Amino acid sequence: MTRILITGGTVIGPSGATANDVLVDGETIAALYAPGQGAGVAVDRTIEASRKYVIPGGIDVHTHMELPFGGTFASDTFETGTVAAAHGGTTTILDFAVQRSGEVVQDGLAAWHAKADGNCAIDYGFHMILGDINEDSLKAMDYLVDNEGITSFKLFMAYPGVFYSDDVQILRAMQRASDNGAVIMMHAENGIAIDVLVQQALARGETDPKYHGLTRPSVLEGEATNRAIVLAGVAGNCPLYIVHMSASEALEAVAEARHEGRNVFAETCPQYLYLTLEETLAKPGFEGAKWVCSPPIRSPHDEHHHQADLWRGLRMNDIAIVSTDHCPFCMKDQKELGIGDFSKIPNGMGGVEHRMELLYQGVVNGEISLARWVETCSTTPARMFGMYPKKGIIAPGSDADVVVWDPTKQTHIGINGKHHMNMDHSSWEGYVIDGKVDTVLSRGTVVIERDTYVGRKGWGRFVRRGLCQYLV
Amino acid sequence: MTRILITGGTVIGPSGATANDVLVDGETIAALYAPGQGAGVAVDRTIEASRKYVIPGGIDVHTHMELPFGGTFASDTFETGTVAAAHGGTTTILDFAVQRSGEVVQDGLAAWHAKADGNCAIDYGFHMILGDINEDSLKAMDYLVDNEGITSFKLFMAYPGVFYSDDVQILRAMQRASDNGAVIMMHAENGIAIDVLVQQALARGETDPKYHGLTRPSVLEGEATNRAIVLAGVAGNCPLYIVHMSASEALEAVAEARHEGRNVFAETCPQYLYLTLEETLAKPGFEGAKWVCSPPIRSPHDEHHHQADLWRGLRMNDIAIVSTDHCPFCMKDQKELGIGDFSKIPNGMGGVEHRMELLYQGVVNGEISLARWVETCSTTPARMFGMYPKKGIIAPGSDADVVVWDPTKQTHIGINGKHHMNMDHSSWEGYVIDGKVDTVLSRGTVVIERDTYVGRKGWGRFVRRGLCQYLV
Amino acid sequence: MTRILITGGTVIGPSGATANDVLVDGETIAALYAPGQGAGVAVDRTIEASRKYVIPGGIDVHTHMELPFGGTFASDTFETGTVAAAHGGTTTILDFAVQRSGEVVQDGLAAWHAKADGNCAIDYGFHMILGDINEDSLKAMDYLVDNEGITSFKLFMAYPGVFYSDDVQILRAMQRASDNGAVIMMHAENGIAIDVLVQQALARGETDPKYHGLTRPSVLEGEATNRAIVLAGVAGNCPLYIVHMSASEALEAVAEARHEGRNVFAETCPQYLYLTLEETLAKPGFEGAKWVCSPPIRSPHDEHHHQADLWRGLRMNDIAIVSTDHCPFCMKDQKELGIGDFSKIPNGMGGVEHRMELLYQGVVNGEISLARWVETCSTTPARMFGMYPKKGIIAPGSDADVVVWDPTKQTHIGINGKHHMNMDHSSWEGYVIDGKVDTVLSRGTVVIERDTYVGRKGWGRFVRRGLCQYLV
Amino acid sequence: MTRILITGGTVIGPSGATANDVLVDGETIAALYAPGQGAGVAVDRTIEASRKYVIPGGIDVHTHMELPFGGTFASDTFETGTVAAAHGGTTTILDFAVQRSGEVVQDGLAAWHAKADGNCAIDYGFHMILGDINEDSLKAMDYLVDNEGITSFKLFMAYPGVFYSDDVQILRAMQRASDNGAVIMMHAENGIAIDVLVQQALARGETDPKYHGLTRPSVLEGEATNRAIVLAGVAGNCPLYIVHMSASEALEAVAEARHEGRNVFAETCPQYLYLTLEETLAKPGFEGAKWVCSPPIRSPHDEHHHQADLWRGLRMNDIAIVSTDHCPFCMKDQKELGIGDFSKIPNGMGGVEHRMELLYQGVVNGEISLARWVETCSTTPARMFGMYPKKGIIAPGSDADVVVWDPTKQTHIGINGKHHMNMDHSSWEGYVIDGKVDTVLSRGTVVIERDTYVGRKGWGRFVRRGLCQYLV
Repeated sequence: MTRILITGGTVIGPSGATANDVLVDGETIAALYAPGQGAGVAVDRTIEASRKYVIPGGIDVHTHMELPFGGTFASDTFETGTVAAAHGGTTTILDFAVQRSGEVVQDGLAAWHAKADGNCAIDYGFHMILGDINEDSLKAMDYLVDNEGITSFKLFMAYPGVFYSDDVQILRAMQRASDNGAVIMMHAENGIAIDVLVQQALARGETDPKYHGLTRPSVLEGEATNRAIVLAGVAGNCPLYIVHMSASEALEAVAEARHEGRNVFAETCPQYLYLTLEETLAKPGFEGAKWVCSPPIRSPHDEHHHQADLWRGLRMNDIAIVSTDHCPFCMKDQKELGIGDFSKIPNGMGGVEHRMELLYQGVVNGEISLARWVETCSTTPARMFGMYPKKGIIAPGSDADVVVWDPTKQTHIGINGKHHMNMDHSSWEGYVIDGKVDTVLSRGTVVIERDTYVGRKGWGRFVRRGLCQYLV
Repeated sequence: MTRILITGGTVIGPSGATANDVLVDGETIAALYAPGQGAGVAVDRTIEASRKYVIPGGIDVHTHMELPFGGTFASDTFETGTVAAAHGGTTTILDFAVQRSGEVVQDGLAAWHAKADGNCAIDYGFHMILGDINEDSLKAMDYLVDNEGITSFKLFMAYPGVFYSDDVQILRAMQRASDNGAVIMMHAENGIAIDVLVQQALARGETDPKYHGLTRPSVLEGEATNRAIVLAGVAGNCPLYIVHMSASEALEAVAEARHEGRNVFAETCPQYLYLTLEETLAKPGFEGAKWVCSPPIRSPHDEHHHQADLWRGLRMNDIAIVSTDHCPFCMKDQKELGIGDFSKIPNGMGGVEHRMELLYQGVVNGEISLARWVETCSTTPARMFGMYPKKGIIAPGSDADVVVWDPTKQTHIGINGKHHMNMDHSSWEGYVIDGKVDTVLSRGTVVIERDTYVGRKGWGRFVRRGLCQYLV
Repeated sequence: MTRILITGGTVIGPSGATANDVLVDGETIAALYAPGQGAGVAVDRTIEASRKYVIPGGIDVHTHMELPFGGTFASDTFETGTVAAAHGGTTTILDFAVQRSGEVVQDGLAAWHAKADGNCAIDYGFHMILGDINEDSLKAMDYLVDNEGITSFKLFMAYPGVFYSDDVQILRAMQRASDNGAVIMMHAENGIAIDVLVQQALARGETDPKYHGLTRPSVLEGEATNRAIVLAGVAGNCPLYIVHMSASEALEAVAEARHEGRNVFAETCPQYLYLTLEETLAKPGFEGAKWVCSPPIRSPHDEHHHQADLWRGLRMNDIAIVSTDHCPFCMKDQKELGIGDFSKIPNGMGGVEHRMELLYQGVVNGEISLARWVETCSTTPARMFGMYPKKGIIAPGSDADVVVWDPTKQTHIGINGKHHMNMDHSSWEGYVIDGKVDTVLSRGTVVIERDTYVGRKGWGRFVRRGLCQYLV
Repeated sequence: MTRILITGGTVIGPSGATANDVLVDGETIAALYAPGQGAGVAVDRTIEASRKYVIPGGIDVHTHMELPFGGTFASDTFETGTVAAAHGGTTTILDFAVQRSGEVVQDGLAAWHAKADGNCAIDYGFHMILGDINEDSLKAMDYLVDNEGITSFKLFMAYPGVFYSDDVQILRAMQRASDNGAVIMMHAENGIAIDVLVQQALARGETDPKYHGLTRPSVLEGEATNRAIVLAGVAGNCPLYIVHMSASEALEAVAEARHEGRNVFAETCPQYLYLTLEETLAKPGFEGAKWVCSPPIRSPHDEHHHQADLWRGLRMNDIAIVSTDHCPFCMKDQKELGIGDFSKIPNGMGGVEHRMELLYQGVVNGEISLARWVETCSTTPARMFGMYPKKGIIAPGSDADVVVWDPTKQTHIGINGKHHMNMDHSSWEGYVIDGKVDTVLSRGTVVIERDTYVGRKGWGRFVRRGLCQYLV
């Protein structure tokens, strides 16, 4: 087994920085040393990390590789997507296996295993999207929790006719989760009401991408979030995790529930922290389609200051995690399905590669601390989804998923810069970010160095997860 | 230098547990190992910690050794008090040096150094109580921050005529703290209004200890907390730390400020988490005097559920820290000064020895997690008061302040049980607690083992602190 | 035309009391006089009202005479129900005409006119329940507002498969109301989730009436109320009126919306202000069926203090109106349909006769003022539903709907006392109330005196209503 | 006695409009008639009010005629001030008698009676400012309530060294008010903290009038308001009335207390509803001095939208009353005392003449309804301060204080327009307002007609007031 010593760096953990050398032995971390204390250790390789940060590899808990959606497929495979993730310092993804309506849950899971198995550059796990809620699927929930390392299940209050679950289904799934300990993940938008607004907009001839944003008002995200929280309470207080929060109203609902001591959590995504409707969806012509995702990117001219509120929520831990909701579609042949009808544009943005970079910019900008960067992008994801301390921390015994980060360099994002996702455009074209990935280890193996992917297809292993370790 | 390997234990940090061996070399931690990886290391001693928790030593940020107050002195010296602290798994205290009105600040500090120097069993630092706020004392604040390792200053909205500062003084001190980065610590009770109620109660012949509680309504703690928060905002948003929070109303004010993203923090104490007015202050005769402290122990029959709210606040991090406000007085000759007039009872309770134990009981009771126990009792105290990672974490390079905790044993608290404080009674007489201190190291030296203090007077060293590392 | 002088009384209006004589001339009030100033006026009759209150006749805006529901019909006809109302000092009711699904709205309205026309003892108007929301029914809304004096429309978030509207329908109706000025009245309970709980309870063999209450948790009333408020906002801020509020959570949602300046209003009913689940639904055997209504009567052992909160809401005008939701069913042959299955018990309680009495008891108990009694039971109902100043105030030009109230007498409620509703039991059996109806005039005609109905069938006239006059 | 019939008008009361003729007989209203019903009544004069509003005379509960303040005296005498008030449709003022520190309360009251007696054009009453709180002044409170028709007492949390009361004094006065039923009126600004900011600004050479505004941040008004509410609660829940509210933070505190059912009330003034710091205090040179009053006129660039919030609070009844805080000073010799030092500028603005006009503009602008205009400017003032139904309502038996208002005309405000106050400038110069005073009656006597004062000095009579009639 290869032994590597990462030396001279500043290890960043969720409570702060320590000057530690990190000994990697095979796939795991063998030891941490005070400076100099690891001097005589025999190693195969030394990675010099002076004036660099040494952080636990990023964990992106919300990706959709190869997702069939909107009449096409998300354009990243597990291979291309995980390579891109690795380039950006992410060493674990949690993707969403899908049970289609009418399908046996385990079959849906098997299909996703088949897609990922042998293809991933980094470790991966699955949440399960439940297309049906009935006796069979509820039993399958128990089975997956107990036997398959799948401990989180996603439901949708949006997308009627596609993934949508009504309150009967939501309540029943939550009741089961209250019993088996699973986390319920919720896409919280009132899709029923949104569809009325969408149809009315189209009937008025409002077909451009920007109407995607205008027909999904933030109050309807707040409403659904509140409803999910109430139903989770009625169901016996199952852990509830609101995915891709974009709206101040939703944040208020989560913050209030948390203030009451509830196990209610939220994630947001870089697009909601940085982008505005005006500079994305509302671009002239069809270009805005690149940024069509749900919930939509919000406007600073709303009643609420969504972006400032999300940053604040992230600081104060009302938002626990930053994920990407990586769900890339090319403009050509994919996004273009919605020319003349924004409701036909496949919903999704690619971003798995850039999350660590974009959030590090938040550190540089003074929005969050270094420790909070690591906590929201790695440590809490691991704890939330039952992978700690295997993942999410630089500690002896943990998987040697390690990123060496160089704060003195810059990263140019976009297809004209750093870009390894299978997309014909970038949502972040032209962004120049302070800081840069230097070296990435996945389970003790260097997979990225000198901007180059040096790992191998299939190195990534499925992570069987336990129950949430983040309950209050 | 002595080398010790603590082996087989479960290390608890603020984000969870890891199975790590801990190598201590001299005064600091030299390395952490995955199980087995430290097998061949040469050590002088091995501490077997299987089935035990290995935690960073407790940090009690609120003690008053030898405090002159109420016409007498707190009954623990720095020697007796720090020995007691060590017995309970606390390896650092932050005590309050006092500038009396009219005194040069540095002289007050020197007096406290004189009391502590050469006497402490464990490490210690000082906050500074400012009895005056004027040009001289404000300059002294800068000096202490820059040169003396004193970065936190306490003011009182209670005790008119003693420690009380009016809003002019508070505002000016806060303005200076906004500039020099110090934390303002606040005893937040409206002492002006309380004194009216006290005088009226005494005039009605209500002289028993319970009237101490009844004349300090929780809304007046809430009011003062709100006022302190507002003044800190006006002053330029200096970090504000509310000490010994006891009341739901105060918690609400802090939670609201935090929800707005403010650097407002709070601590509570075990007495507010466990005890009730009825079973303490309201005991027949004068016995209630044992529990006379300010703010007072609250009643469950209040409009608010203070205890449940404080536990909830502690879980959700609206309360960041648990300290003791250790300020012991004996009944004989001390508390007895207030027979016939509760307002003459010296205010204070002893508890420095029992904080880690009492909070571990919160873990057993399901109120908080193991990780949260360590975070609130050690890691956050270190971060809040500028001592991380020297203190507050088990990490290579950190001071080897380590407690081995045995969760399978029990601790009998009280003068008839474990009790090393210089008091003729215990505030917790008869409490039997799950879990027990097994071994305590202070800077690499075993100071407690087999229930016995094996350290030495003067081992404890003054900790020069930096600025708050817990700002959002 | 008959001229009546009501002399010597204290006229109570929404802002207080005045000593005024009231001259009735024909159907309307002709003049108000300062004491003595009407001395010489020629009248046919003088009603001596010294030491009595003279108030505008009560307006009950929520009744269901002859409602087909739960496989039977509400047991009061417009004749029996309005006679009972008159006995209790109510001189106007607003009943709910029903459009069944698939029916033409105007046909539903015509059917209700046919039931009421020629049968009522007092004046009456209609709200319209919309069973369908589609282009036809939306056009009908406009028509009814413009031409039929129907300016308020009720939807149900409860009762799936019966009256239930989904969010599509609710949003579309609210959009139309935002345009035409109508008030949307909402039965706000999440009936979808409730039905899950009901089926689960029945499956567990929990069939007694008390399970009706336990399967309708108050948070699901709060959730639906919040959702209705959000949808009304998305729809363009149509006036929203929450009917029969029973829960603190719902009150909080309304209060918050009102604090934001929204045109959101609420009513509650005497059963929610006075009765508890334990002393009604939970009575042994099947007796609890008498009090099966939705939302259910709440328990004082809930997390919230619903009753105290509702009284407070009523005082502070977060609750604007008290109605009865009068929907009586006899035990025999009606309530008994649900023996062995609480979900089969027809939902509803009778109370149209007792509202003024029960709320006057609130005055005696110190819960509300005399002025607030009149305001919530008469003046605001008239303003809310477009009938002011024809109804709701003692003023020259207004309909002479006048109640002389004797505060020195008592009223014994129940089938063994005052009871004129067509029910074989009373929900208020045995209540003895301070105060008593002395004389009731409907449009200038005495209809109740000496506890006797002296009016005539068909005297009551349909009231064509205008738009809401209570908007902020 | 003169008999006048006001015919054809629309009478506006707090719950809406009625078409009524008003018969005045001597000093009071004798009767109200439905149109035509008063046709044959013998009268001395008929006032034609077709297409006009007939409203109860305005009541300004906050004026300071001849107030000694800031080294000078408010420039309106009771004579000039009440004539100006009458011109603007105000028929009652409540002025503040002052007990200076060290003075016997009754002597202070006598001094104000001496100033007003025989000089007023309209009726007047007094609140009492208490300069001392001690046993004597507390006894005097009881005496004034019981014997002198003075039932409201004002304290100041601002103006240290002048009117300032500390929390001891406030608490004791509130305790007494809880017993004797008086209303405590509070100037709620933390004057202690403000004085620090003022001194610091002056020391920096910031002497212009705008710094008056910048040194009185709105959070310090919010803080004091919260403190007053808490103290009133501790004191036994005396009625608390916050005067001249200007800040969103203060409104939030009042709204929250009201939401909890507390008897906490607030007034605001036209200057806070319409003016901005930028267009007043911040005018170049010394002109801003015209608008120096406390609290200061706020900026729209504050964190809060104070103006919008105040209008909303007024609509929703979190603000109950609009007064003027009329306290005029001339620029020459008075305001000019503060040239070079804004803290020397006498605090106050004149406005008693324009309140009804300015608030009617709020009706025209859609901010409030006609009914709410009358309620906030006349009815609630009468109820709040124990004068109903003598004042505040058009009802038989009430004082014939009546204003005929012409909505078809306009009013030009300013010394170049309508202006009768003894000031050498107007705070509202150039404002053109929709609507115009047509005729004003004071106790049955026409005092204003055709823009001319036709009353007489000394007509105004002292109003002995009862306790607050607005408690919940």
